[in-house]
Amino acid sequence: MSEEYDLIVIGAGPGGYIAAERAGAAGKKVLLIEENEMGGECTNHGCIPTKSLLAGAKHYVHALESEKFGVTTTEARYDLKTAMAWKQETIETLRAGIAFLMKKNKVVVVKGAASMNPDRSISVNGKHYNGRNIIIATGSSPAVPPIPGADGENVLTNRGILAIEKLPKKLAIIGGGVIGVEFGCYFSSIGVDVTVIEMMDEILPMMDNELASVMRKALKGVEFINSAKVTEITKKGVTYEKGGKSIDVQADMILMAVGRRPNLDGFKDSGLDITRGGIKVDEKMRTNLPGVYAIGDVNGKSQLAHSASRMAEVAVNNILGKEDKMRYNAIPWALYTLPEASGCGMTEKEAKEKGIPVKIASVQMRANGRFLAEYGKREPGLCKVIVNAETGVLLGVNLIGGVASEMIPAVATMIESELRVEEIKEIVFPHPAVAEVIRDAMFEF
Amino acid sequence: MSEEYDLIVIGAGPGGYIAAERAGAAGKKVLLIEENEMGGECTNHGCIPTKSLLAGAKHYVHALESEKFGVTTTEARYDLKTAMAWKQETIETLRAGIAFLMKKNKVVVVKGAASMNPDRSISVNGKHYNGRNIIIATGSSPAVPPIPGADGENVLTNRGILAIEKLPKKLAIIGGGVIGVEFGCYFSSIGVDVTVIEMMDEILPMMDNELASVMRKALKGVEFINSAKVTEITKKGVTYEKGGKSIDVQADMILMAVGRRPNLDGFKDSGLDITRGGIKVDEKMRTNLPGVYAIGDVNGKSQLAHSASRMAEVAVNNILGKEDKMRYNAIPWALYTLPEASGCGMTEKEAKEKGIPVKIASVQMRANGRFLAEYGKREPGLCKVIVNAETGVLLGVNLIGGVASEMIPAVATMIESELRVEEIKEIVFPHPAVAEVIRDAMFEF
Repeated sequence: MSEEYDLIVIGAGPGGYIAAERAGAAGKKVLLIEENEMGGECTNHGCIPTKSLLAGAKHYVHALESEKFGVTTTEARYDLKTAMAWKQETIETLRAGIAFLMKKNKVVVVKGAASMNPDRSISVNGKHYNGRNIIIATGSSPAVPPIPGADGENVLTNRGILAIEKLPKKLAIIGGGVIGVEFGCYFSSIGVDVTVIEMMDEILPMMDNELASVMRKALKGVEFINSAKVTEITKKGVTYEKGGKSIDVQADMILMAVGRRPNLDGFKDSGLDITRGGIKVDEKMRTNLPGVYAIGDVNGKSQLAHSASRMAEVAVNNILGKEDKMRYNAIPWALYTLPEASGCGMTEKEAKEKGIPVKIASVQMRANGRFLAEYGKREPGLCKVIVNAETGVLLGVNLIGGVASEMIPAVATMIESELRVEEIKEIVFPHPAVAEVIRDAMFEF
Repeated sequence: MSEEYDLIVIGAGPGGYIAAERAGAAGKKVLLIEENEMGGECTNHGCIPTKSLLAGAKHYVHALESEKFGVTTTEARYDLKTAMAWKQETIETLRAGIAFLMKKNKVVVVKGAASMNPDRSISVNGKHYNGRNIIIATGSSPAVPPIPGADGENVLTNRGILAIEKLPKKLAIIGGGVIGVEFGCYFSSIGVDVTVIEMMDEILPMMDNELASVMRKALKGVEFINSAKVTEITKKGVTYEKGGKSIDVQADMILMAVGRRPNLDGFKDSGLDITRGGIKVDEKMRTNLPGVYAIGDVNGKSQLAHSASRMAEVAVNNILGKEDKMRYNAIPWALYTLPEASGCGMTEKEAKEKGIPVKIASVQMRANGRFLAEYGKREPGLCKVIVNAETGVLLGVNLIGGVASEMIPAVATMIESELRVEEIKEIVFPHPAVAEVIRDAMFEF
């Protein structure tokens, strides 16, 4: 006996739950399978808890450092337990919200680990389900490299470190990507001694190299060690090799943040075309099997929550017979550090690798009225804009400073709409806004 | 004897200095005349000083109210003198920046009050200047209505209140527009007892009426009295009439913020076509006199700094022979209060008055991940979106919550690009961002 659905979605993260919601809203009979909690890694162990904690860390830093604005405090304190409770409340509110959306859209939710059989049926908890369409959205898990000591009790991933009850004295973070840098900023802001060890010659690979260097210096509380390879983890800390030398970093806690691997456990016998990066898909999110789609981290195309959600919409639109395809040229990213950073589109390096002739403009935020009023001329802030030298079409923007994360949707809109410099000049930005730097940069061309 | 210029700009506010900069950058010989300081009302007595002070007030409130995030302080203090010094430093940095831009673009700057003669020559300090083109950008001044006592020493406008050395105990603000509400938020945030008295039945006329009401309630520290007419000001405070009754509000300081009037002093004999609202202009900012343009508050079309700057660009482009005209359908506004608010395009009421068939969607921010993480489910936050019911084209967005001021450029870009709901759905927003509410609203249609 097996149950029949129009669509079976495996995984209830920002890919899966959006797919289920959109398909349910369109009247489809949808089954959503999730092994753990609703919301996936993003809601439970990623985007949301980190932002909940970073919000408090920013308020703590401001409470300590707002003298220039006329605000002084004595005895500013940070309480981890309260912060963790706030984080947990945020997570649970969002989980409940997702559960409500599923109910509203008549999505059947089953809890359990799913596997896909050679006949394309899906097994969960010994029961079998058939779907006219299947969307795989199982996400990813932290990669743990084969470093001696990496399995020690003092080594945590994003999951473990979001559940600590006591702050470390010294934290070593292996990996200077988004996860490493956000946790580095969080812990250093609340007084923990932090060292980030990065294998590449610069942190933040998605960012323009020049701005990544500005960012590294802006995060004053964090010690960054680039071009360093971790060779061993012990109870006392981390050993790395750099320039032929072996160096020890003392740490009572170690965060492993070297990347993420697709969750492929249930698909070994499925007949799916799987590479090292994940399940192979085309621009409509279709796998090699008819009616089977793979979205989000599990396809390895773009490991961001909002990419997963957009992929969900592309897959569902195709299932519904609507023309839609995934584009990767206007996907923003954001770093919720202090200062914030964000970007969208190509970096200078990417454009040059593709042989696209570019023009570049950089604007310092200290020339911006709101930035001066709210941060001051001594704080780091920069906007770098890349346009196609032949057509004038906007290709990419990188930002450091202000609330960069909320400024970048304007850029995503411009790139998606293929706007040219002359067209962007005609868009009116509010004054004063830090976002004006984007418009101002257009007058540098 | 008179000097000859390609362009004479009168007034160095956000209209005038942008006009001078753009024309200078295009190689024109430009004279800029300013009676007071570089930067005009915006830099010296408006946008910039208020944001400098509000930045501190927000940090002060956060220092007092961040317990839920795990941050506690004892003895948080606000020092007006330090805050005023920060404000002054911001102003002076920006003024110096404008002076630098003028120098860089070879703009000649003359200090003095300008007047325009019937022969179109411009007189300043007894000297006469001729310009092939003239841009009038003299701005506006606070309107002071003929209320008995309005000329008292206890009555200040935006200029006076930004120069106080001692906080009032009780502040009465006459007028619930942007200026009244921002000052109301500022003073109440730092502990002053504030009453705002508004003649209309709702505050914030540019805002969607429903959201203005949410905003009024969100500003908990301010007492708002709507539909009230101030009849007298005395040393003890303000008397207003409401519903046939006469009521006294005690106040040791009164802010007059009932609107602004164009600065037309130097143009009485110019032959310019002037109405009550200001100098009449067409969509290219041309007045009735050939080669004479009027931009910014002095033409009364849109009393916002960024409108003035865009008008400057339109006027200069027309002087340079480039096709350009002013559009008013995608001009954003922002309110830098706590919570922030912003808007762009039409409100529901405006659309209905114009007979445009509309569809409306409202999204509560408490469903948004970042909003929950950084503010919480008990804080006010709302996004209201209006689209053309026939074409699906976005007409307007109003926002309360998050850093609304930095989110609205995305909306300005969408409206200026005449995007439809189905196109906006394909734009990827970063997750988590409060700005996602704009995209989420599209799925309500």
